[in-house]
Amino acid sequence: MSGNTLGNLFAVTNFGESHGPAIGCVIDGCPPGMALSEADIQPELDRRRPGTSKFVTQRQEADQVEILSGVYQGRTTGTPIALLIRNTDQRSKDYGDIAQRFRPGHADYTYWRKYGLRDPRGGGRSSARLTAPTVAAGAVARKWLREKYGTTFRGCMTQVGELAIGFENWQHVDQNPFFAPIADVSAIENYMGALRKAGDSCGARLRVTAQHMPVGLGEPIYDRLDADIAHALMGLNAVKGVEIGDGFASVAHKGSTHGDSLRADPCGSFASNHDGGVLGGISTGQDLEVAIAIKPTSSILVPRASIDETGAPVELITKGRHDPCVGIRATPIAEALLVLVVMEHALRWRAQCADVPVPNGF
Amino acid sequence: MSGNTLGNLFAVTNFGESHGPAIGCVIDGCPPGMALSEADIQPELDRRRPGTSKFVTQRQEADQVEILSGVYQGRTTGTPIALLIRNTDQRSKDYGDIAQRFRPGHADYTYWRKYGLRDPRGGGRSSARLTAPTVAAGAVARKWLREKYGTTFRGCMTQVGELAIGFENWQHVDQNPFFAPIADVSAIENYMGALRKAGDSCGARLRVTAQHMPVGLGEPIYDRLDADIAHALMGLNAVKGVEIGDGFASVAHKGSTHGDSLRADPCGSFASNHDGGVLGGISTGQDLEVAIAIKPTSSILVPRASIDETGAPVELITKGRHDPCVGIRATPIAEALLVLVVMEHALRWRAQCADVPVPNGF
Amino acid sequence: MSGNTLGNLFAVTNFGESHGPAIGCVIDGCPPGMALSEADIQPELDRRRPGTSKFVTQRQEADQVEILSGVYQGRTTGTPIALLIRNTDQRSKDYGDIAQRFRPGHADYTYWRKYGLRDPRGGGRSSARLTAPTVAAGAVARKWLREKYGTTFRGCMTQVGELAIGFENWQHVDQNPFFAPIADVSAIENYMGALRKAGDSCGARLRVTAQHMPVGLGEPIYDRLDADIAHALMGLNAVKGVEIGDGFASVAHKGSTHGDSLRADPCGSFASNHDGGVLGGISTGQDLEVAIAIKPTSSILVPRASIDETGAPVELITKGRHDPCVGIRATPIAEALLVLVVMEHALRWRAQCADVPVPNGF
Amino acid sequence: MSGNTLGNLFAVTNFGESHGPAIGCVIDGCPPGMALSEADIQPELDRRRPGTSKFVTQRQEADQVEILSGVYQGRTTGTPIALLIRNTDQRSKDYGDIAQRFRPGHADYTYWRKYGLRDPRGGGRSSARLTAPTVAAGAVARKWLREKYGTTFRGCMTQVGELAIGFENWQHVDQNPFFAPIADVSAIENYMGALRKAGDSCGARLRVTAQHMPVGLGEPIYDRLDADIAHALMGLNAVKGVEIGDGFASVAHKGSTHGDSLRADPCGSFASNHDGGVLGGISTGQDLEVAIAIKPTSSILVPRASIDETGAPVELITKGRHDPCVGIRATPIAEALLVLVVMEHALRWRAQCADVPVPNGF
Repeated sequence: MSGNTLGNLFAVTNFGESHGPAIGCVIDGCPPGMALSEADIQPELDRRRPGTSKFVTQRQEADQVEILSGVYQGRTTGTPIALLIRNTDQRSKDYGDIAQRFRPGHADYTYWRKYGLRDPRGGGRSSARLTAPTVAAGAVARKWLREKYGTTFRGCMTQVGELAIGFENWQHVDQNPFFAPIADVSAIENYMGALRKAGDSCGARLRVTAQHMPVGLGEPIYDRLDADIAHALMGLNAVKGVEIGDGFASVAHKGSTHGDSLRADPCGSFASNHDGGVLGGISTGQDLEVAIAIKPTSSILVPRASIDETGAPVELITKGRHDPCVGIRATPIAEALLVLVVMEHALRWRAQCADVPVPNGF
Repeated sequence: MSGNTLGNLFAVTNFGESHGPAIGCVIDGCPPGMALSEADIQPELDRRRPGTSKFVTQRQEADQVEILSGVYQGRTTGTPIALLIRNTDQRSKDYGDIAQRFRPGHADYTYWRKYGLRDPRGGGRSSARLTAPTVAAGAVARKWLREKYGTTFRGCMTQVGELAIGFENWQHVDQNPFFAPIADVSAIENYMGALRKAGDSCGARLRVTAQHMPVGLGEPIYDRLDADIAHALMGLNAVKGVEIGDGFASVAHKGSTHGDSLRADPCGSFASNHDGGVLGGISTGQDLEVAIAIKPTSSILVPRASIDETGAPVELITKGRHDPCVGIRATPIAEALLVLVVMEHALRWRAQCADVPVPNGF
Repeated sequence: MSGNTLGNLFAVTNFGESHGPAIGCVIDGCPPGMALSEADIQPELDRRRPGTSKFVTQRQEADQVEILSGVYQGRTTGTPIALLIRNTDQRSKDYGDIAQRFRPGHADYTYWRKYGLRDPRGGGRSSARLTAPTVAAGAVARKWLREKYGTTFRGCMTQVGELAIGFENWQHVDQNPFFAPIADVSAIENYMGALRKAGDSCGARLRVTAQHMPVGLGEPIYDRLDADIAHALMGLNAVKGVEIGDGFASVAHKGSTHGDSLRADPCGSFASNHDGGVLGGISTGQDLEVAIAIKPTSSILVPRASIDETGAPVELITKGRHDPCVGIRATPIAEALLVLVVMEHALRWRAQCADVPVPNGF
Repeated sequence: MSGNTLGNLFAVTNFGESHGPAIGCVIDGCPPGMALSEADIQPELDRRRPGTSKFVTQRQEADQVEILSGVYQGRTTGTPIALLIRNTDQRSKDYGDIAQRFRPGHADYTYWRKYGLRDPRGGGRSSARLTAPTVAAGAVARKWLREKYGTTFRGCMTQVGELAIGFENWQHVDQNPFFAPIADVSAIENYMGALRKAGDSCGARLRVTAQHMPVGLGEPIYDRLDADIAHALMGLNAVKGVEIGDGFASVAHKGSTHGDSLRADPCGSFASNHDGGVLGGISTGQDLEVAIAIKPTSSILVPRASIDETGAPVELITKGRHDPCVGIRATPIAEALLVLVVMEHALRWRAQCADVPVPNGF
């Protein structure tokens, strides 16, 4: 209710600040009996981790997760799972000169106006560092969905700045630091290298998908599956747009070609997926297809005009260790958010509709 | 929780089906003491009403709203406001031939699979008719926000099918059936006329905005203002994309130009609005700028391949009375959804942050 | 969230005032496919209905319920079920002389202070008349629980004023206007007759139970089954106490005799039920045993000292048509509230724990 | 939603098990700007702490709380406050012999049946140890309510087993280990000593109150203040009954004496407090008066018959370190729960009704 819990039946409550003692989350509602240990969560955190290439922030955080509760003898007990990640590499002195100044495009001003005070160290609560607990919670839900329904999730970068990235193969995604689905990422490296040298930043476009989706997830008319996907992903730092299926391209489509035809063989399959796996706010069983737009990082070395807390004009340069494109590390986070939305709706579906018979052949 | 309530502190619970006896909603949480009568709500319903031009469904519904509760001697009492709209022009026989068949691009299949049965008359619960109670609730919140904070809302169509619509003036919007901000809508009429003759449909792109926004609305890290806007608007029938501020165009932007600079005069104002009035998920006080993509109507006269409930292949034509472009009537609905999100966050802000002092000059 | 919705997965949103045009509720989350018509709901409303004996208010309300949505061809569709009851026998002039005065023990003062205004006609929103929609919603849940799990509910009066009522047989309960489980109610009639003649009122104690309970319902540590039962029943008008199992008598018990022993034959049964069917906030499978205390009706003919809206002292007599003991008609309402709590927890259990295997023999 | 969060606007999410690595909670929604440190919380935890007298469990836990987030430079930031308490004195071997057996009156059986597995060490999640985070969260809310509205809270024991405890003075309460409001507790010591020698346990009755209450808190018709108090307190381990005001004694009262008269001087005061500070579910401004019944501890040395996980009969003695009367340490916990309910409703009131003018003199 107060904004730091995602989901109701699989409720993830997030806490912490970038440079406080620790960050973490509490997962309430995980079904009991699933095998779970830190080893199930750590790999997803490692995918998101800073400091892994020269194109991301050089902050060194192990992001070591500790399970504090909710697991007994290696199995979930159905009670809250608290996950703790200690912050270790805080260099708060980096932020002294922006403590009373507002970076353009950043949350500095709005946090200060809303709460009357803010933790300026590393962006405090508004830091992208707070996506780590989300990713950790996503790892738990991802395991349950895979084991229970065979549902899987993946994502990739499809554009960085002005550079469109074609799709070659999912296999490439985890072989480069950009989560790009291509074998040769030298063009991206060159683009990012030039940007870094200029002290500037750029945006990115990502694609996230789910495969082997159960049919029937989503609660119209307001808590539709697509609505909740949009909520989760627009809520990710720096995201300015969300599309399902053909998204904004649908505007210029005709009804005679856009609507996805159903086929008799196999029964209930579709001839196309313009709608991205959701009809009327409910999953069709097709792959979920989601795209997001991420704006350029606000923390840059190029000087910008702004004001301070007294209202006086200032010129700002953001030193410190920042990602020149926050989109680079956003793929595992976007996947985790999609996972959490599907998890929530899977549990809701079980509550209300698990008894509905599946017709023959469908 | 079960999907038909929007908001928590200003909670709108929607009920009804397209061809049932009535549709409506219950608003829980409206502050007491505001003057309110049906006359405050009816004009917004009239803007959304079907049958008003040849380019929208010819169904004739008065959409006459009745306040059943929550108002005493012309003032809100702080208790639930129930709004009832009787359906009057149902022609359910129109739908007999699609009762067991699934229209491509429509919610027929997913409702049937989720619930095991569905009301096929006019799309039942999945009909855009159910946006009427949302619009009615929006009218109540809109009045409160205008009187309390001076906040206002407006929207317009910016593209229909392949036809981009330039912006001339807000004054034009309510002078034509398309909510287009231009004086001469003959090009739109011609485009829609050809489409209607072909029995086909098209999509649309809309813009919705809020002016005179309070600063500080939004509850990071998950229930950010932009996240909840995306939830509400992606949840509107046929919407496939939502953008805040520069949206997908941000991907190709540089940080050095994208971030909106703050100015000292007047204190706390911004030099641009690429971020669309939201930073870090919290309102900046600038205008909210939102765009949505609406896909083409699924109910068309062009024959489409599909299957029926037994899994057998069928060819489908959707007779009945439908909008060739659902985007045409969507502007007042999209406005209402934006209103409801702002209302919810205004109340949340009052609960937690109303005491925060506003610094001098800001 | 704003207080007029009970439950989350089976969410009942209540609206209306005693003398407004209508009262009702919207049920969101009812599982699809259950046969349902007004005939399933009306009998429960008739049990609660005013005007049925000389010991209850003489207001004549048919309490005829209309299903506005959520049912198609006689079956629930899984979408919101709106229930409407028109008020017909309002005599608002009866309330003119208390419009600016506060009845001792009544909600007049607190509604006025909280909301700044109030509907004085028949108590407005604070009237026990608003329990009718709760009873109607309870009838829907009761049917589902009976058909799905065989769970049944019943209640009776166990004390009225100073008069304790022994337990003879459940069969008697629906044979007298007091819901007393005894054959001869003449003592109660005499007691109530004397009270009515004196223009006074008295309290009552009720017992409500559930049989054939599923094991495992309840969500510790906060949303325990017993906690939610206490919430629902303490929320009923005029209730001042709630007990589960032995209740306040437990204080003087010893651990060596209080704890209910488990038996091997049949496996998992209990030798006693001091705990009233709940252990650690979770249902044991034994009967739920709940007791409530209802205070005397505030609206009486005996003159009382009070003040008016200007703060001036007044002497008050409450004319109008009132129950001399609100406890008399409360049994079906208390049953409905217990039903709704069990329904909510049954759905929650399905979401999280429906897969948990039941061990052999248990 | 999944049961481990109390409150919505001031939402406390609890995690941990009795013998896991840590317990704690996340508070979401605390207003910003309040001075807060561990020193504000620790004293309340110390009041609840085990091992402080021979009449409570001898487990030695420092219950040292660490604030992990939500506080910057000694002030709350409006973001989630995570509180961590490491467990230090676990002796899990004590519980080996009850790992597969069900203690009568304990949550062993229901947890096992609900979740299919359970952590038997010290009762796992069902342990009263999990009230420590509740107490810690209560300390935060208590400070805010005292500073903002001057509201204060206190409680005491009024009966232990068969021994009624008269009321002498609030000053005595923190001078003895029983929270008894009397100077000479030797009778209680003798009673408890005999009980401990017999290896048995007993129940207790507690009173909790709030002073200087704001008028207008509570959200009828379901989320009434009294309903939420009943929810919170019935949800406390071992509680079997909750009363507001005169509670069950109201049953035998007459309306002519029960209803609390309003007085003109001072304006809006009451001549009595039979209703315990709540009318129509809304606070009157009078003291809140709440009583709870706590059943005898289930973990005793007297042998009891029960069964094990295979369904076979067993005889059980509970060794380990247990409170012979869990009611002894429950006073600060019950206070904390009352605090949290008032806090939640204070924030809700601010959201909806903070603008309502207070009439002259009231």
